[in-house]
Amino acid sequence: MMIKAYGAPAGDKPLEPMDITRRAMGAQDVQIDIAYCGICHSDLHQARAEWAGTHFPCVPGHEIVGRVASVGTQVTNVQVGDLVGVGCIVDSCQHCEECDVGQENYCDAMIGTYNFPTPDAPGWTLGGYAQQIVVNERYVLRIRHPESQLAAVAPLLCAGITTYSPLRHWNIGPGQKVGVVGIGGLGHVGIKLAHAMGAHVVAFTTSDSKREAAKALGADDVVVSRNASEMAEHTASLDFILNTVAAPHDLDAFMALLKRDGTMTLVGVPAEAHPSPQVFHLVSKRRTLAGSMIGGIPETQEMLDFCAKHDIVADIELISADQINASYERMLRGDVKYRFVIDNGTLSTAS
Amino acid sequence: MMIKAYGAPAGDKPLEPMDITRRAMGAQDVQIDIAYCGICHSDLHQARAEWAGTHFPCVPGHEIVGRVASVGTQVTNVQVGDLVGVGCIVDSCQHCEECDVGQENYCDAMIGTYNFPTPDAPGWTLGGYAQQIVVNERYVLRIRHPESQLAAVAPLLCAGITTYSPLRHWNIGPGQKVGVVGIGGLGHVGIKLAHAMGAHVVAFTTSDSKREAAKALGADDVVVSRNASEMAEHTASLDFILNTVAAPHDLDAFMALLKRDGTMTLVGVPAEAHPSPQVFHLVSKRRTLAGSMIGGIPETQEMLDFCAKHDIVADIELISADQINASYERMLRGDVKYRFVIDNGTLSTAS
Repeated sequence: MMIKAYGAPAGDKPLEPMDITRRAMGAQDVQIDIAYCGICHSDLHQARAEWAGTHFPCVPGHEIVGRVASVGTQVTNVQVGDLVGVGCIVDSCQHCEECDVGQENYCDAMIGTYNFPTPDAPGWTLGGYAQQIVVNERYVLRIRHPESQLAAVAPLLCAGITTYSPLRHWNIGPGQKVGVVGIGGLGHVGIKLAHAMGAHVVAFTTSDSKREAAKALGADDVVVSRNASEMAEHTASLDFILNTVAAPHDLDAFMALLKRDGTMTLVGVPAEAHPSPQVFHLVSKRRTLAGSMIGGIPETQEMLDFCAKHDIVADIELISADQINASYERMLRGDVKYRFVIDNGTLSTAS
Repeated sequence: MMIKAYGAPAGDKPLEPMDITRRAMGAQDVQIDIAYCGICHSDLHQARAEWAGTHFPCVPGHEIVGRVASVGTQVTNVQVGDLVGVGCIVDSCQHCEECDVGQENYCDAMIGTYNFPTPDAPGWTLGGYAQQIVVNERYVLRIRHPESQLAAVAPLLCAGITTYSPLRHWNIGPGQKVGVVGIGGLGHVGIKLAHAMGAHVVAFTTSDSKREAAKALGADDVVVSRNASEMAEHTASLDFILNTVAAPHDLDAFMALLKRDGTMTLVGVPAEAHPSPQVFHLVSKRRTLAGSMIGGIPETQEMLDFCAKHDIVADIELISADQINASYERMLRGDVKYRFVIDNGTLSTAS
């Protein structure tokens, strides 16, 4: 059965309406009518072939929410009509050391929601800019937010888990001072999460104009990182820094703000390397520089439940499918507060 | 009272015999007759003004062992005649968060054993290439090895604690696979320590000729890091890597060998930056890159006691004072297995 989607026919072409198919339902599969899909910066990189290995046509989208339309005969976790989500992962080996502990995100055979190899047509996965998706139930999350928040829940499936996982892994909680670098799609959720976990949150931005917005999101302090004296006030005082900035930048300026045994975790992968961090900053206070990638399926469910309990959603701008290309341009200019979400109901009439 | 020492009159001059004074004994001071002093690569950097801020004359040496000659009126921890050691630290603020938990090495006011400011003449600390030293008892360690091993204990005061501290901090023990990069002054002790802690030890060297020596030190596997296929055999398999190499090198080749949540800790600070490590290696397995600097005083005592219990000393070549300059040249060529130690008894007749 053909469904409507929106994707890139080539790396140098804008996205356009296209018809795609999904695989026939297996016993453990869940068919989801997609209500909304968030737009992640990764979508743009992949669709424009800025990352190696994009297969075309490319249908991006890994911040998927919707309602269960049908279930396979062995599905036990969800029922028709349930509100559900799908994030960045639609399959993994299911038997390695990583999968066994629910860290499917670190499984060497992880299958991403788009552009990963699959036996299904056309040979690589197609994402959430589409009317429907078929996913093994292991990778389907329950959404317990009110349905009225559904569109704003979508970005939690990538931006939410990508920031929640490191905050949890490094045991963020009350009594700790936590920095969040970058107030964008990821960072704005990171601020909300760290605040809800009880930490004292310091938001770092290059833009003086984001001060009030950052405080409204839950930041206790806001530091304009280009202002050396503002930065110096926080020297060797932070327990943890969540760095969401993917553009190459001076990591040392932030490393110096960590106290002894502090950690800065990067969740963005720059296309060009960051300037090499000074070893001096690492050894002089036994600091660590770490990375983290998305999160596992059980912790994604934990994140969604945490957000439902704490009334956390993303701040979004809802768009129709035919605004996708324009939204990519606005995203490149930083002109979004803080995440575009596609109303997938508009795919049926998109041009 | 004048004592004999050996030091550099200027950065471009060889070391030479010189007469120095030590401060008058305070109530908490310990006067030590120095029997032996190890030669650390840092000594060379400082004496040759390769690091900024060397004061001249410069008397290096922070791997000091000897016997207590006299004690101040309030000294309680050691007695005249005890075998003792002094490492890289001779003072700190004694009341900050770091000092309170015995991490004097991370105290912002830490005073190193040489070239740090002091009210004593000549205005900066003078190290262990000397007949005697006077040190506050807090920074004096007890040595429980047999006296016959005393010369080989000396390097433990820097090379030993610098490798022991990160191995302990990252909880190395049985069931873990631990890499040690570089088989030199630090690395050869690191291999012995990691082996004694019960880990499976993989030694990494650029030199095929060090294979047998590394196994004799306690390595279970030896990998020549320039051999890509040997390296590939260990991909994503190590829990921890202790990297003792201070020269700039490709960190990514080692990061890729860490399993999920693995850590590589750097204990050498290169004069020029390492090539910037790829963020991909950090995020793809939640790996961390860390640093560690020497160790605190309580853990230095713990290290010495651990080494005494496990019969661990450094492999050394004992030299007389007038061989110091020649030993610096040999150290630069890597021609030492694995640490030079000065017989300070030869200072009285050195030319």
